[in-house]
Amino acid sequence: MTITYLLELLGCVSFAISGAFAGIQKRLDVFGVLTIAFVTSIGGGTVRDILIGELPVSWMMDKYYSAVIFFSTIATMLFWKQLKSFKLPLFIFDTIGLGLFTIVGVQKALAAGLKPEICVALGTITGCFGGITRDILLNNIPLIFRKEIYATACIAGGLVYITSLQMGVDINITRLCAVSTICFIRIVAVRYKLTLPRMY
Amino acid sequence: MTITYLLELLGCVSFAISGAFAGIQKRLDVFGVLTIAFVTSIGGGTVRDILIGELPVSWMMDKYYSAVIFFSTIATMLFWKQLKSFKLPLFIFDTIGLGLFTIVGVQKALAAGLKPEICVALGTITGCFGGITRDILLNNIPLIFRKEIYATACIAGGLVYITSLQMGVDINITRLCAVSTICFIRIVAVRYKLTLPRMY
Amino acid sequence: MTITYLLELLGCVSFAISGAFAGIQKRLDVFGVLTIAFVTSIGGGTVRDILIGELPVSWMMDKYYSAVIFFSTIATMLFWKQLKSFKLPLFIFDTIGLGLFTIVGVQKALAAGLKPEICVALGTITGCFGGITRDILLNNIPLIFRKEIYATACIAGGLVYITSLQMGVDINITRLCAVSTICFIRIVAVRYKLTLPRMY
Repeated sequence: MTITYLLELLGCVSFAISGAFAGIQKRLDVFGVLTIAFVTSIGGGTVRDILIGELPVSWMMDKYYSAVIFFSTIATMLFWKQLKSFKLPLFIFDTIGLGLFTIVGVQKALAAGLKPEICVALGTITGCFGGITRDILLNNIPLIFRKEIYATACIAGGLVYITSLQMGVDINITRLCAVSTICFIRIVAVRYKLTLPRMY
Repeated sequence: MTITYLLELLGCVSFAISGAFAGIQKRLDVFGVLTIAFVTSIGGGTVRDILIGELPVSWMMDKYYSAVIFFSTIATMLFWKQLKSFKLPLFIFDTIGLGLFTIVGVQKALAAGLKPEICVALGTITGCFGGITRDILLNNIPLIFRKEIYATACIAGGLVYITSLQMGVDINITRLCAVSTICFIRIVAVRYKLTLPRMY
Repeated sequence: MTITYLLELLGCVSFAISGAFAGIQKRLDVFGVLTIAFVTSIGGGTVRDILIGELPVSWMMDKYYSAVIFFSTIATMLFWKQLKSFKLPLFIFDTIGLGLFTIVGVQKALAAGLKPEICVALGTITGCFGGITRDILLNNIPLIFRKEIYATACIAGGLVYITSLQMGVDINITRLCAVSTICFIRIVAVRYKLTLPRMY
């Protein structure tokens, strides 16, 4: 088990937790919360795999994915009152997960021989789509379209990854730089309440 | 034409009728009602086929599916005022359809060589996803997340199917037990208004 | 570059513009508007390619698609105040796009060896699905279900295409007839405010 895969599972955990919280907030029943948590965690990778045509989708073939999501969600449901105040660790996990999921998406797209801008798009989809689906299922306008710099961080990280690789930089340093870019932009954006401009 | 296939078509009919009713209630036009009926009927199988990678999706290759859905919906639109009071037969058809669709989903997932828990998940998706998509298109929070034991019955039926098969029980008895489990749980849940617990 | 492909790109441009307008109206930020524009443009073709199993989906492999959508959206964001009054050219582009996307969808489905009625359905999906997804993401009941004859024009055009081909008519004349049918029905429907009947 590589470090990247371990961190990906960690990202998976935090997306499951964020999905579970959203479901609990909307007063769903136990099954509803589990479903929302799964969708938030696997949504991005699923859409990416379908668009590329790598089927069956990867989480269905993976040994740990579903178990990890299941137990994270159960834990959230048991301890959500205590966890509610754990905003900082949750935000950190979510941000690391976003960074790693994006890079995994870019890598898989590159391996499928797609164009650089499409790879960045697929990385962004991998990072963001779970949250979009969660919001659609809960009948909100997807948060991603309303607040914070979220997808923009993924796009920037994807561009760093592609550029760095094309310049011949070592793959591990490239990964580190790209993930750091995403985390840095997101942290700065949330800290200073930066948003993208609207039309009016 | 096997009995299972015939019963699957029957399930298809009842899902089309339930979709048509939902569309008529929301005052959609004729095309809207037809679309909602189709989506409710084929939604689950479509998502399952895409996730597994069995493309083109099966209903597009099937001889009777689209015709059966089309004529069921037309019939509903012609006779909906009379059918409105036929709650019991509708509920029975819907429940049988749910049971059969779930088992078909589990079987196809097993045939694709996937893990048992993934097979149960794919069976549940096959049974439930049509209704979820219907609710999203009609801009409601999916009913499945709010009321009744619905997906839980599918999960129980899927577990019965997998366990029974692993114990070496005959395939037809296994099917019967699994479908009966789903129908039984759903009927009992609706009769006694059982629901899953919420978080608060 | 064939004329059909050029016209398809034109349709792509106008769908991007219509998506951008919808996003600006809902006061999304720059990224949100871009996303909605992309989804409106590529939604239909993506669903068609997934259902048929032609993966990776075609717009990811295409040279010009993403660039064309990107620059159309940027242009809309820069000039939307001026364009707002350009209702007629927008409507024309949108209608031509609808016609061409539908025919492209029918052709790809025929090439995949599917049944005629499924080909018409896939053509209609190619023409209409982008707009449906746009409306779901913006949390509206899809416009297609509420007003105007939209999908019906696609279905009629698809039927003309299939019938004409089976009668041995030249492929280019067939295309022209089918696209004209779609544009004609849509223009007449909008001009005379024709709608499909509702149930009550």
